[in-house]
Amino acid sequence: MAAIEELVSELSRLPGIGRKTATRLTYFLLKQPADVVRRLARALDAVVDRVRPCTVCGSLGETDPCAICEDPRRDRSLLCVVEEASDIGAIERTGEYRGQYHVLGGHLSPLDGIGPDELRLEALRGRIANGTPVREVILATNPSMEGEVTATYVRGIVEEAGVRVTRIALGLPVGGDLEYADSVTVARALAARREMRDA
Amino acid sequence: MAAIEELVSELSRLPGIGRKTATRLTYFLLKQPADVVRRLARALDAVVDRVRPCTVCGSLGETDPCAICEDPRRDRSLLCVVEEASDIGAIERTGEYRGQYHVLGGHLSPLDGIGPDELRLEALRGRIANGTPVREVILATNPSMEGEVTATYVRGIVEEAGVRVTRIALGLPVGGDLEYADSVTVARALAARREMRDA
Repeated sequence: MAAIEELVSELSRLPGIGRKTATRLTYFLLKQPADVVRRLARALDAVVDRVRPCTVCGSLGETDPCAICEDPRRDRSLLCVVEEASDIGAIERTGEYRGQYHVLGGHLSPLDGIGPDELRLEALRGRIANGTPVREVILATNPSMEGEVTATYVRGIVEEAGVRVTRIALGLPVGGDLEYADSVTVARALAARREMRDA
Repeated sequence: MAAIEELVSELSRLPGIGRKTATRLTYFLLKQPADVVRRLARALDAVVDRVRPCTVCGSLGETDPCAICEDPRRDRSLLCVVEEASDIGAIERTGEYRGQYHVLGGHLSPLDGIGPDELRLEALRGRIANGTPVREVILATNPSMEGEVTATYVRGIVEEAGVRVTRIALGLPVGGDLEYADSVTVARALAARREMRDA
């Protein structure tokens, strides 16, 4: 296939990128200096060559165990369970969390054939049973239907092991607007209301 | 820089792709088999290695002159002037045009420092003056303010050479809705009205 067509076709495999956007991106790249295009190609090669999953937590990085699992300053008795490796960034960016992570690799979704065996649950059981004792598991799956179902399922596993389980709070987003918030979120925010205390 | 970060950063250089989308694309690619990512990298290398501008019409292809300029079945006395190489596809897809093209490489835009010298106008003059006599130049620059200004400018050059100049029609898009059409388009469609003839 001709080189231009080929690039359009490869780019349109990306999620959210249709044929029109792929064509626009291709012609944008054709107008760039060659080294801009080469840098993108090298960055793609590099993730294939260098990125691998961490066999401990399931996140993605260039070492195994990953930098967070290896970090002696991070609290090994605190585990934060997330659906995807990409969710870790959202929590790391808060700068507030000093524990470790456990990536499930998705959420329970029977319709898509994703049951408990498809998630990294055996690995979670193993981490709780062996090694440094875990005192708390924070469930940070998505605030979606599937994320809730998954959190409930994981809760059972953790409680069985006699470890404290918590769920990240659902409520109004900071800077959000009560008037425009969806009613499910407002209901959650009401149900999870807390006593106000003097700071 | 770490490989994941590097890919996010390279992807976010693309137009319309912010950091969030770049992160989403990166994690999508990390979930794909390695050869999917490699194919995209190879497609990028291929456009750099193989695609070059056609010195005749200014379009992009893998030969110089390009396939259209070389095609003996295409009418060399008819030139369609477009702003960008990527515009050629829109006209080729109609299957109705059998002439040749001339790519300006942009539109006049004094505020961005793009004057007549930045466009491929000398090359256009040359094509009209030498070689196969040109009987008509179709101006297919965009129906935008800059495209109109550019069309008017190019018209002067072509008329000076004593060649017929036409402009592609502006009007209601086929399948469009009069009620929702913008008033400038409706005004153009009214002004350019034509006698109805029996088919």
